[in-house]
Amino acid sequence: MTTVSVLGLGPMGRALAGALLDAGLSVTVWNRTPSRADELLGRGAHWAGTPAEAVAASDVTLINVVDHDVVDAVLDTAGPAVDGRGIVGLTSDTPERARHTATLVAAAGGRYLDGAIMTPAPTIGTDAASVLFAGPRSLFDSHASMFAELGRATWLGEDHGCAAGFDVALLDLFWTSTGGFLHALKVAQANGVGPSDLLPHALGIVEILPAVFTELTERARDGNHADSTAPVSSVAASLRHLIAASRDAGVGSDALQALKRSVDAVVEQGHGADEVTRVLDHL
Amino acid sequence: MTTVSVLGLGPMGRALAGALLDAGLSVTVWNRTPSRADELLGRGAHWAGTPAEAVAASDVTLINVVDHDVVDAVLDTAGPAVDGRGIVGLTSDTPERARHTATLVAAAGGRYLDGAIMTPAPTIGTDAASVLFAGPRSLFDSHASMFAELGRATWLGEDHGCAAGFDVALLDLFWTSTGGFLHALKVAQANGVGPSDLLPHALGIVEILPAVFTELTERARDGNHADSTAPVSSVAASLRHLIAASRDAGVGSDALQALKRSVDAVVEQGHGADEVTRVLDHL
Ligand SMILES: NC(=O)c1ccc[n+]([C@@H]2O[C@H](COP(=O)([O-])OP(=O)(O)OC[C@H]3O[C@@H](n4cnc5c(N)ncnc54)[C@H](OP(=O)(O)O)[C@@H]3O)[C@@H](O)[C@H]2O)c1
Ligand SMILES: NC(=O)c1ccc[n+]([C@@H]2O[C@H](COP(=O)([O-])OP(=O)(O)OC[C@H]3O[C@@H](n4cnc5c(N)ncnc54)[C@H](OP(=O)(O)O)[C@@H]3O)[C@@H](O)[C@H]2O)c1
Repeated sequence: MTTVSVLGLGPMGRALAGALLDAGLSVTVWNRTPSRADELLGRGAHWAGTPAEAVAASDVTLINVVDHDVVDAVLDTAGPAVDGRGIVGLTSDTPERARHTATLVAAAGGRYLDGAIMTPAPTIGTDAASVLFAGPRSLFDSHASMFAELGRATWLGEDHGCAAGFDVALLDLFWTSTGGFLHALKVAQANGVGPSDLLPHALGIVEILPAVFTELTERARDGNHADSTAPVSSVAASLRHLIAASRDAGVGSDALQALKRSVDAVVEQGHGADEVTRVLDHL
Repeated sequence: MTTVSVLGLGPMGRALAGALLDAGLSVTVWNRTPSRADELLGRGAHWAGTPAEAVAASDVTLINVVDHDVVDAVLDTAGPAVDGRGIVGLTSDTPERARHTATLVAAAGGRYLDGAIMTPAPTIGTDAASVLFAGPRSLFDSHASMFAELGRATWLGEDHGCAAGFDVALLDLFWTSTGGFLHALKVAQANGVGPSDLLPHALGIVEILPAVFTELTERARDGNHADSTAPVSSVAASLRHLIAASRDAGVGSDALQALKRSVDAVVEQGHGADEVTRVLDHL
């Protein structure tokens, strides 16, 4: 029977440990604040008093804390327990930090796999969850069935930084979109449009994003910025009035202004009739 | 037979005129640069040498140019021809500018309906197109069957600014998301992930946005920021490493930094465990 330890019981760590318990695995947990383990212990998880005890208790240890500074500090306190163990980091951070953690684990005699969880905590344990992995293929393969209990698991390559490379790009998209939605809620409110009135139309915007992103991807790949149906000069006009509308609404507009600077640079260079992918040279 | 004039033949104006021709209506067009009308004239549209001639030629005139400065200037040159006519503005701009144009049209003896086109030019003439209208209900009703040839037409209210109120909020979402995607393409590229490799995962992110936006809407409406599955403190950590990853990639990160300032303000006020909707008070 596979034994798994989970270090870090934030919303995501609890979801991971919960899904593994549901799958009938033997799960040991540790968290800086012990009380967050209560519900999991009630469901059959074992408590470890220290990260070292947790790592020693299982074949493989998942670590999921707030950032890689904390990952490295927690693994450091685990000390020699890491020797000969498999460590799977599921904390989001930069590719550089993932590679650095891999070096630390290797120095302690362990093997490291880096993972990036691409979907929210409530998806974990369902087919809607997606987790990307990077590092030794053999380490991924030996735990593939355990990973499958968490959601769709995809191995991307041996470079420990490559899951985080996807992760930063995708979280970038997620947080700029989500930040944009929160900003839109404020602008709408200032114009007498409440959150629930805006939502169905906002979902209509989300519906068109796949086609738009697909076209932008093809254009970026091919370096083809011609025959635009929404030329950069028109985007500049849109951004100008969105910035004005934000000002009228008493809301900051730094995100829109940043995009506008790139768009303006394209127009100044005489490419105003081109597709917005031209801004890729000016971000 | 309904006669319609279209002033402005950018990508969107050409799509509008084309859909009306396809519907068998009598269409008169004008554009500052006459050559853009060539294809439409070949399909049976009539050419008007001036905005005044165009407005005089039809029951109702659609105007779709780059912004409301140009709308107002074009309507000004149409002069007395506007008297007794229906003018439908389909140019995106702020609610204030829509109301201002309504005042100018009324002063010239015309009736004004403001419209906001929510979908890209290629959707026009299909069920995928969505156009929101604001202004006199009777004016909307008299042209409802013509509007239906453009796509789904929705009348929102008598206030001439209310379609633009939705428009600015939705374009805000569209351009922050699209700008975020372009930014993500750059960050990915710097980490060895090409546009076509990123796309399927980016579409996976888009897939989760409806559920996320729905939850954020309900929380914003109810002022409920508790029991977060992705607390503000965790968002702050994500933004911190996304900004670092942008720096490593040699890409600016103003949009992320703007959101981070709002998120940091929430954490400083002791609400780090709350849902990100808390930032609505700090944008
Ligand atoms: N939540 C999601 O939906 C989601 C989705 C995708 C990816 N992720 C990623 O998953 C990771 C964890 O996220 P999360 O949502 O569970 O919440 P989080 O707030 O990012 O992390 C909370 C965890 O970090 C621990 N921690 C923080 N500072 C610590 C320190 N100095 N020493 C030891 N432990 C420390 C917390 O311990 P205490 O309980 O003691 O504070 C808790 O276990 C993050 O990298 C996040 O980006 C989360
Ligand atoms: N394209 C889309 O997919 C889309 C989607 C939703 C909404 N919209 C909105 O529809 C409107 C039109 O967009 P568009 O894509 O067709 O392109 P655009 O670049 O925004 O507008 C081009 C039109 O504006 C005219 N124009 C610009 N400056 C002028 C001036 N000083 N005097 C007279 N005419 C002037 C152009 O005439 P010339 O041909 O002589 O330059 C052309 O007819 C915008 O408000 C846009 O936000 C567009």
